[in-house]
Amino acid sequence: MQSHGGPGGLWARRAFLGALAVGGGVVQAQPAPSAQEPLAARLPQSMARPGGADVPYGQPSAYEAAVQRSVSHVSGFAGWRTPLQHQRGIITPSGLHFAVHHNGVPDIDPARHELRLHGLVDKPLRVDLARLLRYPMVSRVHFLECAGNSAANALSPTALDQTLGELAGEVSCSEWTGVPLSYLLNEAGLKDRARWVVAEGADGGSHSRSLPLKALLEHGMVALYQNGERLRPSQGYPMRLFMPGWEGNVNIKWLHRLEVSDAPAYTKDESGLYTQVLADGRIERFAFHMDVKSVITHPSGQQTMPETQGFYEIAGLAWSGYGRIARVDVSVDGGRTWAAAHLHGPVLDRAFTRFTLPWKWNGRRADLLSRATDEHGRTQPLRGEWKRRYALHSFNHYNAVQAWRVQADGRVENLYA
Amino acid sequence: MQSHGGPGGLWARRAFLGALAVGGGVVQAQPAPSAQEPLAARLPQSMARPGGADVPYGQPSAYEAAVQRSVSHVSGFAGWRTPLQHQRGIITPSGLHFAVHHNGVPDIDPARHELRLHGLVDKPLRVDLARLLRYPMVSRVHFLECAGNSAANALSPTALDQTLGELAGEVSCSEWTGVPLSYLLNEAGLKDRARWVVAEGADGGSHSRSLPLKALLEHGMVALYQNGERLRPSQGYPMRLFMPGWEGNVNIKWLHRLEVSDAPAYTKDESGLYTQVLADGRIERFAFHMDVKSVITHPSGQQTMPETQGFYEIAGLAWSGYGRIARVDVSVDGGRTWAAAHLHGPVLDRAFTRFTLPWKWNGRRADLLSRATDEHGRTQPLRGEWKRRYALHSFNHYNAVQAWRVQADGRVENLYA
Repeated sequence: MQSHGGPGGLWARRAFLGALAVGGGVVQAQPAPSAQEPLAARLPQSMARPGGADVPYGQPSAYEAAVQRSVSHVSGFAGWRTPLQHQRGIITPSGLHFAVHHNGVPDIDPARHELRLHGLVDKPLRVDLARLLRYPMVSRVHFLECAGNSAANALSPTALDQTLGELAGEVSCSEWTGVPLSYLLNEAGLKDRARWVVAEGADGGSHSRSLPLKALLEHGMVALYQNGERLRPSQGYPMRLFMPGWEGNVNIKWLHRLEVSDAPAYTKDESGLYTQVLADGRIERFAFHMDVKSVITHPSGQQTMPETQGFYEIAGLAWSGYGRIARVDVSVDGGRTWAAAHLHGPVLDRAFTRFTLPWKWNGRRADLLSRATDEHGRTQPLRGEWKRRYALHSFNHYNAVQAWRVQADGRVENLYA
Repeated sequence: MQSHGGPGGLWARRAFLGALAVGGGVVQAQPAPSAQEPLAARLPQSMARPGGADVPYGQPSAYEAAVQRSVSHVSGFAGWRTPLQHQRGIITPSGLHFAVHHNGVPDIDPARHELRLHGLVDKPLRVDLARLLRYPMVSRVHFLECAGNSAANALSPTALDQTLGELAGEVSCSEWTGVPLSYLLNEAGLKDRARWVVAEGADGGSHSRSLPLKALLEHGMVALYQNGERLRPSQGYPMRLFMPGWEGNVNIKWLHRLEVSDAPAYTKDESGLYTQVLADGRIERFAFHMDVKSVITHPSGQQTMPETQGFYEIAGLAWSGYGRIARVDVSVDGGRTWAAAHLHGPVLDRAFTRFTLPWKWNGRRADLLSRATDEHGRTQPLRGEWKRRYALHSFNHYNAVQAWRVQADGRVENLYA
């Protein structure tokens, strides 16, 4: 029972598929009742009558009503978190995309909205929606993560017993479509001294951040669409700045102004909340990239294993603000031994990558960890390593290994490894 | 004015990007007002007050309420069509995914639903949701298209003046996640005589189709998730069969039964509606693959060009039930000359591929066509060629070139090319 191909019951994917191919039932579906069972008893009620009408804009099943974003605050400053423990694949449904609002969700009439581009340019521009929609567009699948995602794991002295979404759900992944910012910046004409761009949202708190011009020219996008339709209000409708791999709060929602400058503006949003204090007292400012990270989604916090032993597929998500995921290692014994998970393609640049690994659980307490490594060799620290790097009350850019304890009775709990 | 790099004003993408890089304003954003304009006049109203509350499951902006599926019938047999003219990127939002219902949308309690697998197997199986969710899963981005998509173009003697969604919106593209069917079939154990599988839905009309076993073993999936969340009711909640690249109606929704057999069952759904009569009177049955096809989404039917000359990006979608898209050619002169469009990556197997081409419109009447070719060299016929192949009233599997006429006054209309 103990070992079926690897440490702690972890199976290499090839061995697992080989077992399946010869008819090895992994989950052991129930045998069907005999053919003598009366037909009427076998027919679902739904086959006895016509179905209901469909609607012009579809919604999830009423039986899935519990699959919602959780919220950390209910005031103007609110963090809505993706229930990653319910997500499969790499695309987050737009209705469940995380959002952190500093001043609520403004109501913006797209017919009256325009984007201004001014400062160190030859020709200041203003662009309304009708005009912007005529520019060439590109689409990219990218994750987006709040700088403060997993803050509870960074700050709480003991591991909080919460779901994955509550603990680390301020990250999601969508197909974003919009106009490359370079088109607008080049059209305006950049002055020689131009080095930074201050981006401002049209929300009640005029959330704003300074971003290096060079990176914006290379990767910046004015995003207009998410997963095939116009941005949702809580994602910045009618337009947002999008910088792949960079912390969420620089992806300015409800974007209405871009000011080209020769230096950062040191706005309240970059001199305060979104700086980080290191262990030696120095301040880490303009740390834009979100680092490599992973979470096991199945099984995860507050779930219960349906049976207290047997086959399970361990599944999770990995991402890096620096590029593609190269590998994910999984441990079921608290980090003593590791096995390489299977990465499901397409493995995209700065996007969620799904990983899985078959596991034959022996029914004893097991500590599950995942550790992602990206194409540049960046990998995740353990929590202790992360804590030693930052000051006691720092919590941004937390990317330490997320661990889950599977108890012998099947309960799954958050764990500091 | 006439030519900027190619026939009829079509630009090669490289030439176009070169022009942009030296500051060539393609759409000509308006100059900004002078800095002397009072600040208050420049500030959007949304910045003067806090925003509103967000919700646990997000919805589109109220300003986008017109972006809906159109419906061709309102009885039990209804076709809900994706407004492709509003989609950017390759992912169709789940709320706008097309659906054709033969008997409405059944209400299925997932706790009471199960899948039965029986017939020519060693061990008949039944699998409920809780159990199926424990099997290993895979995710794939694939289009799905109704066999009867574009039927109006096949049947109407004159080109109907409708939107792209109304004309050809019974096709969409999602990330589908589920359990490979081979896992269940191998677990049940296949008898030597096994060649076909009859799949049946738990809807009021017990919609069912026979599918060749070999293909199901290779590509079949019991889909449980779409775009990261559980299937929507109109997509077969809680489970559907998914066969990438095959006509929509074989992807049995509300799947509850798979019977392994040695021959097709010739169900009503495969001996009637979903057969096709060829021009010589022979019947084309079990024609599962949807062929290579493309549509220009921008500009498209019933849209109006904002200005009656100048720069436009022609954008569209291409797909093939046989594999990857290899190239898309675009014409703006009714098919006399063609230019290769840019394919946006990732170019995925049996998925939407986005194509674009910059176009400098000279303001005169222009007939726009797109013609896709897949990796196997399959390409689209013109309408006349397609019509010659099939009997007069055949309409399934219509994949002829879709053409749009851009009138000098800016109106865009459906055209038979």
